[in-house]
Amino acid sequence: MDVHRVCLPPKQTVFQVLKHRLSEIFFPDDPLHRFKNQSPFTKLVLGLQYFFPIFQWGPNYNLKLLKSDIISGLTIASLAIPQGISYAKLANLPPIIGLYSSFVPPLIYAVLGSSRHLAVGPVSIASLVMGSMLGESVSNTEEPILFLKLALTATLFAGIFQASLGLLRLGFIIDFLSKATLVGFMAGAAIIVSLQQLKGLLGIVHFTGKMQIIPVMSSVFKHTNEWSWQTIIMGLSFLAFLLTTRHISTRKPKLFWVSAAAPLTSVILSTIIVFAFRAHIHGISTIGHLQKGINPPSANMLYLHGPYLGLAIKTGIITGILSLTEGIAVGRTFASLRNYQVDGNKEMMAIGLMNMAGSCASCYVTTGSFSRSAVNFNAGAQTAVSNIVMAATVLVTLLFLMPLFTYTPNVILGAIIITAVIGLIDYRAAYRLWCVDKLDFFACMSAFFGVLFLSVQMGLAIAVGVSMFKILLHVTRPNTVVLGNIPGTQIFQNLSRYQVASRVPSFLILGIESPVYFANSAYLQERILRWVREEEDRIRESNESPLKCVVLDMSAVTAIDTSGIEAIRELRKTLEKRLIQFVLVNPVGEVMEKLHRSRILESFKLNGLYLTVGEAISDISSLFKAQP
Amino acid sequence: MDVHRVCLPPKQTVFQVLKHRLSEIFFPDDPLHRFKNQSPFTKLVLGLQYFFPIFQWGPNYNLKLLKSDIISGLTIASLAIPQGISYAKLANLPPIIGLYSSFVPPLIYAVLGSSRHLAVGPVSIASLVMGSMLGESVSNTEEPILFLKLALTATLFAGIFQASLGLLRLGFIIDFLSKATLVGFMAGAAIIVSLQQLKGLLGIVHFTGKMQIIPVMSSVFKHTNEWSWQTIIMGLSFLAFLLTTRHISTRKPKLFWVSAAAPLTSVILSTIIVFAFRAHIHGISTIGHLQKGINPPSANMLYLHGPYLGLAIKTGIITGILSLTEGIAVGRTFASLRNYQVDGNKEMMAIGLMNMAGSCASCYVTTGSFSRSAVNFNAGAQTAVSNIVMAATVLVTLLFLMPLFTYTPNVILGAIIITAVIGLIDYRAAYRLWCVDKLDFFACMSAFFGVLFLSVQMGLAIAVGVSMFKILLHVTRPNTVVLGNIPGTQIFQNLSRYQVASRVPSFLILGIESPVYFANSAYLQERILRWVREEEDRIRESNESPLKCVVLDMSAVTAIDTSGIEAIRELRKTLEKRLIQFVLVNPVGEVMEKLHRSRILESFKLNGLYLTVGEAISDISSLFKAQP
Repeated sequence: MDVHRVCLPPKQTVFQVLKHRLSEIFFPDDPLHRFKNQSPFTKLVLGLQYFFPIFQWGPNYNLKLLKSDIISGLTIASLAIPQGISYAKLANLPPIIGLYSSFVPPLIYAVLGSSRHLAVGPVSIASLVMGSMLGESVSNTEEPILFLKLALTATLFAGIFQASLGLLRLGFIIDFLSKATLVGFMAGAAIIVSLQQLKGLLGIVHFTGKMQIIPVMSSVFKHTNEWSWQTIIMGLSFLAFLLTTRHISTRKPKLFWVSAAAPLTSVILSTIIVFAFRAHIHGISTIGHLQKGINPPSANMLYLHGPYLGLAIKTGIITGILSLTEGIAVGRTFASLRNYQVDGNKEMMAIGLMNMAGSCASCYVTTGSFSRSAVNFNAGAQTAVSNIVMAATVLVTLLFLMPLFTYTPNVILGAIIITAVIGLIDYRAAYRLWCVDKLDFFACMSAFFGVLFLSVQMGLAIAVGVSMFKILLHVTRPNTVVLGNIPGTQIFQNLSRYQVASRVPSFLILGIESPVYFANSAYLQERILRWVREEEDRIRESNESPLKCVVLDMSAVTAIDTSGIEAIRELRKTLEKRLIQFVLVNPVGEVMEKLHRSRILESFKLNGLYLTVGEAISDISSLFKAQP
Repeated sequence: MDVHRVCLPPKQTVFQVLKHRLSEIFFPDDPLHRFKNQSPFTKLVLGLQYFFPIFQWGPNYNLKLLKSDIISGLTIASLAIPQGISYAKLANLPPIIGLYSSFVPPLIYAVLGSSRHLAVGPVSIASLVMGSMLGESVSNTEEPILFLKLALTATLFAGIFQASLGLLRLGFIIDFLSKATLVGFMAGAAIIVSLQQLKGLLGIVHFTGKMQIIPVMSSVFKHTNEWSWQTIIMGLSFLAFLLTTRHISTRKPKLFWVSAAAPLTSVILSTIIVFAFRAHIHGISTIGHLQKGINPPSANMLYLHGPYLGLAIKTGIITGILSLTEGIAVGRTFASLRNYQVDGNKEMMAIGLMNMAGSCASCYVTTGSFSRSAVNFNAGAQTAVSNIVMAATVLVTLLFLMPLFTYTPNVILGAIIITAVIGLIDYRAAYRLWCVDKLDFFACMSAFFGVLFLSVQMGLAIAVGVSMFKILLHVTRPNTVVLGNIPGTQIFQNLSRYQVASRVPSFLILGIESPVYFANSAYLQERILRWVREEEDRIRESNESPLKCVVLDMSAVTAIDTSGIEAIRELRKTLEKRLIQFVLVNPVGEVMEKLHRSRILESFKLNGLYLTVGEAISDISSLFKAQP
């Protein structure tokens, strides 16, 4: 019979291997492929287009696109203004910082960003986390200037961190926040955020600064005497209004403008009500005086040495990761809907630069918001010009309309926040996780309860820990399966799955479904010997021909380390002592190389390595017949 | 053509899956298999034998075995007495504690342990770590009683931790200390230990309490005025003697007794010299008066509440893990040489109980020592009786021979320790790691330098971190390969490895060599699209027939999670938009189940799933021919 040899991968020097590995780690998408075989001028143009995507779509921009972008830009502006004010309050920052943050960053993103649908500005999760992390050490009411300084500094570090992730092409770090984790984390954060709004909705003055569910709820019910019925009535009516418009738009995506216009409508209506009845209504707190004018420079506000620097850096890194995750995920979602690509590492640089610049222009951390980007997409945005239109609208507001917000009640901001974050509670996704993967569901729930009962950071840490643990568990206790032959073919498949497959007499064919690592080599050794023992027991009971050969199908052993090689060596020795031949089949390239380099193959006899299970069986069977 | 269907694994309830998973995690060796189908009496006997292995070999014990055990027992006793005293000093404990620890624990192990060759007693690494961890907070010279109390308490917690690992069948935790890590860690620890002995060898009185290489070396050269030439001459001569005997025994294992007898010979010789010239020699410090008598009970010494309890628990857990790792590794090594099995979880219980009992009988943490077990093995030990013989010899020493140690110079203990630990520096193993696996070598070196320059615990933590990171890196950036057909067969193999393999026109066959997880789903999606792009570029250049179908061989995709499923769904959509068919081949059981449960398979057309690449290609080619 014709037996095929198992080949070694082509020889490579350590340097070549390192180069290949590093390019796979850092440049999996081969970002320079467009530059190959081009003239220097084209290279320059391509380079400009690479760093400033505006050069890519700018030359083809026309009036029709502009019309779409103006409509969508105005729509998201009407959402961005009330949300900006609300999210700034969520981060315990002055409301105007939220408007500043909706002006400068979108302009920068329009030049650097590669997504056409991302609507940039402050977002709920990052605002919450920033407010909560800084608030643990510094009080925003007692030291508002220090708090603002730290927020701006955290934004600077968030930007530096994001841009360096992109520059160093370490974008894969955000992949460690799995979808499952995020579902739980977002839902927990949304509940925390909504509960925080009870302060505004009930008109409570003395409220806990903590974020966990228990102190917040006890704070709500300890101060029932502070509940203000006027505030409650106004808050609940507008909340009902906002939720209804949201429901309408979710049902019919064509009516997106209903929910998009609702927040601004609520702000205007409630402001008019409060203004009209200002002599009669008491106990409704309002935003108060806001300063006119565009973003003041804030480079002098950065807090670059002192006892809280560590806190600012930590807050920056965590909010940086979170906002990056949201921004990239949103960008990818809408890119895949319109079938274009968003380069993760480039987006990171764009978002990072935007935050670095923002921190010097009185902006706190910003990214692509999911809710506003969805509205942007539905409103027909075609390019990043919609962000420019939005920024222009915010500019007009900053310059001329600020006095109008003086009588806007705070309660309305709470209602707007609740309506915005309630969409983050994706119970359907959680149910899908439960159906498909119990461990993913567990990771999701740990994040959820971690955020609710411990803290936002702890919830995140727990969830990442559970996700990692899941990977390690899979590696520690991998599947081993017994294979059988599907009659009339050369196909060998899992006996317990394929009823039609049958055992090959005198052979035990095992498949290992995992890399063989230090973490599982002892287990695999034990487990394989147990398979052999059980097979021998079975043979003894059924009086079949005795076991002569164990075939180890290594197709799914994707990697091996020195402990794994040791385990194979030990197994061979043990089986040899029991007069059972041990055969390896189809090791993948990397594994084959290591087996070769460790010289373990020399200890196998001539017939110790085959390319397919079928060839191994037929070749060894013929040997058995030759020497019975 | 006959096409085989891909089967789902047999249906199981959540409870059945959970039961199977848990039994694989906790009972991979099926420890109860011997109890199946046995009478109640046999079950009782087997149960007794399971918990007390002495009942297994005891009944067949005979005079011939006893003779071997007495010889080996006396041999290891001659090694255990000087080493016991030395290691206790290494842990900053009174020397007699080392002798106590060589008496009670071996007796307990003889009853409970399942290894026949393990020589039980104090070991260097655990002694070093215990001394160093406790010494960071409590000075052994200023508060010797507190220090001793903490050491005993740490021993108790080490025992509790070890026994519970065994009882809860969590033995796999020690697998996370990979061989590569241990090589580096041991070598680093050996160097630290040897450098510590410079204090004794040079006769320095004022020596640093720190463990890192830099303070130790500066301490050595800052106190050159304290160097005592008598001590140095004596120390170096005996060190040379011990190293020579060690060299002889390593070269000729038959002469094991040369190195086994050398430490005791050195102790006797040096004691005689010091005693004879005691009037003339000054500056040689000696052990001094040791109390006669067997282990005093020490349950009243346990430190169970107070500020240092946390320290004792932490020290207990770390020394517990380290001593467990050594004990189990040694047990397994010699078991595999004699072809018997050592049950890891049972050994953990035995070692744990031995330490728990030891902590109440003035013993500090003990385990199976590698060096003494090797001597035990070479001296022909047959059963755990050699441990009993050794304990009896130690008993005689404790009762009658203690005054003889009064004039034993401390310098000789230093020489004995250096000789014992020098074998832990396994540079050949490190070189082998370099040859076979660069990342393993990196883990090894991190542990080595971490121990040398930071601290023993940090070195350990770094090494475990690097090992974990290696697993995660493999998962984050898995291999994807392009497969081709080996002409005349149904074998599909890596094109870059098998020169004979050739592309199938109109098809791109990709193999993924890793689970598809949240940590790599974005990467794989990008990478696969890049393969498609590169294939299309190649086809365009060589004017071949256009790409019509991408076949994804999932044989080596050993698991998938919800993010992975999402990636497959996205890929299918993207390829569909480009009019390329997307086909999955041979998902393993677990993956198939999740694909099924997530209903993603319904989105594939009828011809979206095949059992082998060959069948996929021939079936789809015939379809292409039917509808050109």
